[in-house]
Amino acid sequence: MSPRRLHLNAFLMGVGHHEAAWRHPRTEPALVTDVKHFQNLARIAERGKLDSVFLADGVALWGNVRHNALGGLEPLTLLSAIAAVTEHIGLIATASTTYNEPFHLARKFASLDHISNGRAGWNIVTSASEAEAHNFGIERPAHRDRYARADEFLEVVTKLWDSWEDDAVVKDRESGIYADTDKIHAVEHSGPHFAVKGPLNTQRPPQGHPLIVQAGSSPDGKDFAARHAEAVFTAQQTLAEGQEFYADIKARAVAAGRRPEDIVILPGISPIIGSTEREALRLERELEELIIPAYGVAQLSTILGVDLSDHPLDEPLPEISPETEGQQSRVKLVLDLASRDNLTIRQLIARLAGGRGHRVLAGTPELIADQIQEWFEQGAADGFNIMPPVLPSGLTDFVDHVVPVLQARGLFRYEYEGRTLRENYGLARPANRYAELAVV
Amino acid sequence: MSPRRLHLNAFLMGVGHHEAAWRHPRTEPALVTDVKHFQNLARIAERGKLDSVFLADGVALWGNVRHNALGGLEPLTLLSAIAAVTEHIGLIATASTTYNEPFHLARKFASLDHISNGRAGWNIVTSASEAEAHNFGIERPAHRDRYARADEFLEVVTKLWDSWEDDAVVKDRESGIYADTDKIHAVEHSGPHFAVKGPLNTQRPPQGHPLIVQAGSSPDGKDFAARHAEAVFTAQQTLAEGQEFYADIKARAVAAGRRPEDIVILPGISPIIGSTEREALRLERELEELIIPAYGVAQLSTILGVDLSDHPLDEPLPEISPETEGQQSRVKLVLDLASRDNLTIRQLIARLAGGRGHRVLAGTPELIADQIQEWFEQGAADGFNIMPPVLPSGLTDFVDHVVPVLQARGLFRYEYEGRTLRENYGLARPANRYAELAVV
Repeated sequence: MSPRRLHLNAFLMGVGHHEAAWRHPRTEPALVTDVKHFQNLARIAERGKLDSVFLADGVALWGNVRHNALGGLEPLTLLSAIAAVTEHIGLIATASTTYNEPFHLARKFASLDHISNGRAGWNIVTSASEAEAHNFGIERPAHRDRYARADEFLEVVTKLWDSWEDDAVVKDRESGIYADTDKIHAVEHSGPHFAVKGPLNTQRPPQGHPLIVQAGSSPDGKDFAARHAEAVFTAQQTLAEGQEFYADIKARAVAAGRRPEDIVILPGISPIIGSTEREALRLERELEELIIPAYGVAQLSTILGVDLSDHPLDEPLPEISPETEGQQSRVKLVLDLASRDNLTIRQLIARLAGGRGHRVLAGTPELIADQIQEWFEQGAADGFNIMPPVLPSGLTDFVDHVVPVLQARGLFRYEYEGRTLRENYGLARPANRYAELAVV
Repeated sequence: MSPRRLHLNAFLMGVGHHEAAWRHPRTEPALVTDVKHFQNLARIAERGKLDSVFLADGVALWGNVRHNALGGLEPLTLLSAIAAVTEHIGLIATASTTYNEPFHLARKFASLDHISNGRAGWNIVTSASEAEAHNFGIERPAHRDRYARADEFLEVVTKLWDSWEDDAVVKDRESGIYADTDKIHAVEHSGPHFAVKGPLNTQRPPQGHPLIVQAGSSPDGKDFAARHAEAVFTAQQTLAEGQEFYADIKARAVAAGRRPEDIVILPGISPIIGSTEREALRLERELEELIIPAYGVAQLSTILGVDLSDHPLDEPLPEISPETEGQQSRVKLVLDLASRDNLTIRQLIARLAGGRGHRVLAGTPELIADQIQEWFEQGAADGFNIMPPVLPSGLTDFVDHVVPVLQARGLFRYEYEGRTLRENYGLARPANRYAELAVV
């Protein structure tokens, strides 16, 4: 058996994950809508042999656009333009099961998978915000209802991906038979949320199914991940929490009839890299000083569901009970972070501005690599979701200085092992449910 | 005033518009799902200085996949990959207003417009087929209801495109102001079909609004075009019919308060090009001989809503009254074509296999150019929608042999006039409705 290898995803967000990144001299805020910027980032990640890049998404204008660099591009459209200039790197986009139709998403991800020769991945979200519901003329469905819809949505999508068997297209010019119609199947799905006849009008994706990614941390979200996800993004602040989450998801996957290795767990990390610790801490401080406190307070108030605007910045949070519907796991994470490290509101805002609840690590490449190795070897991670604070330089620094350390330690690949995203993540190509039936 | 100039769109479809194209030795049927094929076609069209490429679409597997090269890629995803390797050519995709949400389409076309630096266009369809409805769990809405929804859909989409004013993003690093929130507007749309709060979470597209294209030929469709479309695709068989349609649409546009030049009319033409007439006719005959008659009969039966399978191939059509809902204009066109040219069923099938009701012209580059010039100068066209029977060679022949003739006659550009699709089509950039309000 080959040694266990790390997986690394580059989470691309505007000009950096730090909220104040656009104000820092290392960034250029006009790049938020510039396809060449994102193509460049993907090429940098590919140079570093990373498994994939990821673009998050929501279907509303979130956050305070007065102080934050928002209004960028729709991820699937953007990833297709990135596919055109890359060869190896996986391409993962968020799309919502609450505000889409399965036929459309099945088709778009199948198309991206064809365009990229098997590099597409779908991060499934159920869209927790009120603001998103109001762009689609409805009230936000309850948490449990959103997950029930997501389950059925994924069932329909995978049926549609299977609706053409891999060998359905025969292209026999002589006889005039383009496809063997016995190998193209109506899916005839009928359930509580969807009635979809099929087949899809796009041939089966090269990966069979594009990679299924998920990031829910609620019990419903974790069960969904355990049943369906092949990669999981998660925010974990400490090794102990990371280990607990890791063991929990793997156990749930086993309970759902899967093998532990069928699901790759990728905690988020925002590495603030310097050639010396001092240099890293200076960059961290520069970014902190660019935070607009009133904006941070407003954001924190939204996350916690409590108005903090009259509360002194340099005192700890008031007593808060985590009861807000929909974002419980995020609220708990923020409250734990504040109490564990005994943070004032100002300090908490700075911590969240860096990673939105993900782990922020400032230090030398060796320190970043040590932390990655520790979590990887101590049962807290199969790899990491890298969230550079400033882009592109934060990604360049990771690729040029952290990746070589990980490679030298035998933890990370020097060359891509496979052709597809699945192959690089070490995940199997799904069988076609209709072909299996035919064999029986 | 500069001389009136032709506009040319290349309608890209698999390995050619002729139904039997995939069987002809000049094509490679595996290219139907190959992004490089479509990138190559767009580059050929760009080399010929064509205004745009167009990808049609439906949201069901139409036609008989046993004999026809189907199952290709979703157009918006594909155009983004084409945008990445081209610089000038416009990129037009079909998307349905019946089975989409305005927020999603507004965002995707805005994203494609950013990615392409102002080259996106949207061909609006209302999706006439039953098969499409059954992929979305509903019965097909009536023709009139679909157009009522399309009207409101377009209203919401254009509001969302305007929701960020052009100068909303100020990016003032010093003060920490990224955007002037007085210039970002909730759209607060509430109508019979949609309730959408907005704003869009993508900045205003470079063109203001991506180009609006339409192809309906029913009275509802023509009125929709007259109110909203900036380019119109149409199938017209004779100069007289072309002139009538042209005058009708321009008159309807004027009645809707627009100028005739605000709407560009592009009849379809499938040019079968040979260096001699004999060579062109040979290619036409080769393609005809590859048609599978039973498939053609089944298709014709579907179009006409009458089972023709027991009818002799070498006799004319039986008496048919055009009463099928939804596709009346297409039925009328087919019946007119059959009776005008006194065609047998076999001949009618061959004619339709070439252009699906669009005009098929076999001949030398000069003959094709003559016909284009005649329609352009005689009030039947502002340009043409070029539908090559086989791809890529049919497009290469058009670009290398017909375009130079049109250029030499002063009818077509030697270089792109503008940077955006709108500029090349000679169409104005739309004002922002919210900015106008602010000025008043």
